[in-house]
Amino acid sequence: MTRVYNFSAGPAMLPEPVLNQARDEMLDWRGSGMCVAEMSHRGKEFMAIAAEAEADLRELLIIPEHYKVLFLQGGASLQFAMVPLNMLGDKGRADYLNTGSWSKKAIAEAKRFGEVRIAASTEASRFTCAPAQDELSLDPDAAYVHYTPNETIEGVEFPYVPETGAVPLVADMSSTILSRPIDVTRFGLIYAGAQKNIGPAGLTIVIVREDLIGKAQPFTPTMLDYKIHAENGSMYNTPPTYAWYLAGLVFKWLKGIGGLSTIAEINARKAQKLYAAIDRSSFYHNPVEPSARSWMNVPFTLAKPELDETFLKEAKAVGLTTLQGHRSVGGMRASIYNAMPEAGVDALIAFMQDFERRYG
Amino acid sequence: MTRVYNFSAGPAMLPEPVLNQARDEMLDWRGSGMCVAEMSHRGKEFMAIAAEAEADLRELLIIPEHYKVLFLQGGASLQFAMVPLNMLGDKGRADYLNTGSWSKKAIAEAKRFGEVRIAASTEASRFTCAPAQDELSLDPDAAYVHYTPNETIEGVEFPYVPETGAVPLVADMSSTILSRPIDVTRFGLIYAGAQKNIGPAGLTIVIVREDLIGKAQPFTPTMLDYKIHAENGSMYNTPPTYAWYLAGLVFKWLKGIGGLSTIAEINARKAQKLYAAIDRSSFYHNPVEPSARSWMNVPFTLAKPELDETFLKEAKAVGLTTLQGHRSVGGMRASIYNAMPEAGVDALIAFMQDFERRYG
Repeated sequence: MTRVYNFSAGPAMLPEPVLNQARDEMLDWRGSGMCVAEMSHRGKEFMAIAAEAEADLRELLIIPEHYKVLFLQGGASLQFAMVPLNMLGDKGRADYLNTGSWSKKAIAEAKRFGEVRIAASTEASRFTCAPAQDELSLDPDAAYVHYTPNETIEGVEFPYVPETGAVPLVADMSSTILSRPIDVTRFGLIYAGAQKNIGPAGLTIVIVREDLIGKAQPFTPTMLDYKIHAENGSMYNTPPTYAWYLAGLVFKWLKGIGGLSTIAEINARKAQKLYAAIDRSSFYHNPVEPSARSWMNVPFTLAKPELDETFLKEAKAVGLTTLQGHRSVGGMRASIYNAMPEAGVDALIAFMQDFERRYG
Repeated sequence: MTRVYNFSAGPAMLPEPVLNQARDEMLDWRGSGMCVAEMSHRGKEFMAIAAEAEADLRELLIIPEHYKVLFLQGGASLQFAMVPLNMLGDKGRADYLNTGSWSKKAIAEAKRFGEVRIAASTEASRFTCAPAQDELSLDPDAAYVHYTPNETIEGVEFPYVPETGAVPLVADMSSTILSRPIDVTRFGLIYAGAQKNIGPAGLTIVIVREDLIGKAQPFTPTMLDYKIHAENGSMYNTPPTYAWYLAGLVFKWLKGIGGLSTIAEINARKAQKLYAAIDRSSFYHNPVEPSARSWMNVPFTLAKPELDETFLKEAKAVGLTTLQGHRSVGGMRASIYNAMPEAGVDALIAFMQDFERRYG
């Protein structure tokens, strides 16, 4: 067996110790005689697995008691509807920061349920920077402010958390959650699809301040109401139990290596060395303003785009996979989430330098 | 390692060969160097896995070309909203058959989006029978007729498929799909949560006739619109890839043992011998009218309910787990889905007889 370094933007690599443990427990979770996927979600075994995963996530992110943690389904795309349905309330309008492909999707969906103000947009610069705090035109009467701290496709990231005063801040952290410590109390609601830094696709984590729950529009489907899930410990219906378990193993792995401050150091180093290699070269190019470059998603182009296919083919041959850029921007993209070992980034840089020597 | 016979109503047992294969492929799916959970859903490896799973399901159920098969999230509970949101159309009203706890939930949710007529109800008999065809009071102008072919909690099952003329028939097949051959053309839409006969929780299968797609109410969230998922091959957003893969392994296993006619014989035999054991005894009792007894969920009570805890404890000690009845009906429930081996039912019967000898 040869494992590859998989640079997919998501679903993405999982830590190898997590996969080893899942493999070993597949037919018999700790003497239960069952795979976790076979357990009743209301049985004591799974209830313990679920509670431990939540406790570990709370410990990692230092989530205060007055925030609920929900384990849901549907990905960020369903949150694009759930956020306005649950949070527009009587105000009926919200501010959105337009900083890339995913914010645009969130904005389009929110417009179907209420009034959306664009409080900042970097579209004119083709989403290659983040707006500064003093460029945000915030409405003090907005129901909430929504933004995307890390744009997976453009590889652009906010270097700061926007200050929104009394207006709750909502963040789509799908591609940046758990990559470093954050101050949860700065946010009203955080959501994240699992398939980048948490676990397998099909699980969505929502962290929401309790006072913001319970204001769903009357036509909100029951399953889209945060209150229902909060009141039922995310077990109003059968949750995605196996994904929840795998997420728990990922949280345990993160704790084991030293938590978010340790992974932040590793992530910063991985990103810095990859950007440095790109910037040193005249063959590779990253378009994002240095202060807003993503730690997680590193898009880059080749000076000779006619070599893209050769690059991908040769990379794959040496075990560096899923490097093609998103179809909307082209070129390459290396997603280097928590589970990508530093050795994988080193191998990519070595390959890039070798490729440039041969074709540049 | 000792595997148990797990009678959970869902999540439920998975076939052991499926778990073995998933374990063996956990770190490296067929030389890819990746777990399936790590693969980009748009990469050629996962696209092939997804397509093969759909093809196998189509073959097993003989699904005609003019039906779409969708791999979604959210369980039957989300379908309770998606069905009316997508199918009420201009008519604005639908017929529902009220035959147990799950139909009641479907009815309650549908009422939030349109007019619901109860075309039959067995509530007066405490949901211990199925209404006959000539007891259905059907509205020829209904947008659709919704029913629950198998009620997981009450253990009651329709012995026939209702005839609804030109009105599309919608069925929540969560706990009966793939247990025997069905004629898909009798249905407008079939939905099923995966966690009983398909795979792990977190995947929902929808089989829908093409002409019924595209009529969603204007306020339907994008992710709840069948049209969006149908047009995007269930990849409008990241699908629950690992659950989809496991479902594919289950479909392959079913094909390998001979398909739905074979599993139907086994399932009928399993159910018949368990009901026969209950009926032979004066200690155990099943309240359901014999013609409407479920093949999948067998609730039963003990003549001495004060022995319930002893029964559960002793059963667990011999590897027969999760036999407690649903909290709303009490007693016991043995769910004997496809993956429950006949030997598990035999072991349960032997235990029940021994228990009765000792305590009856």
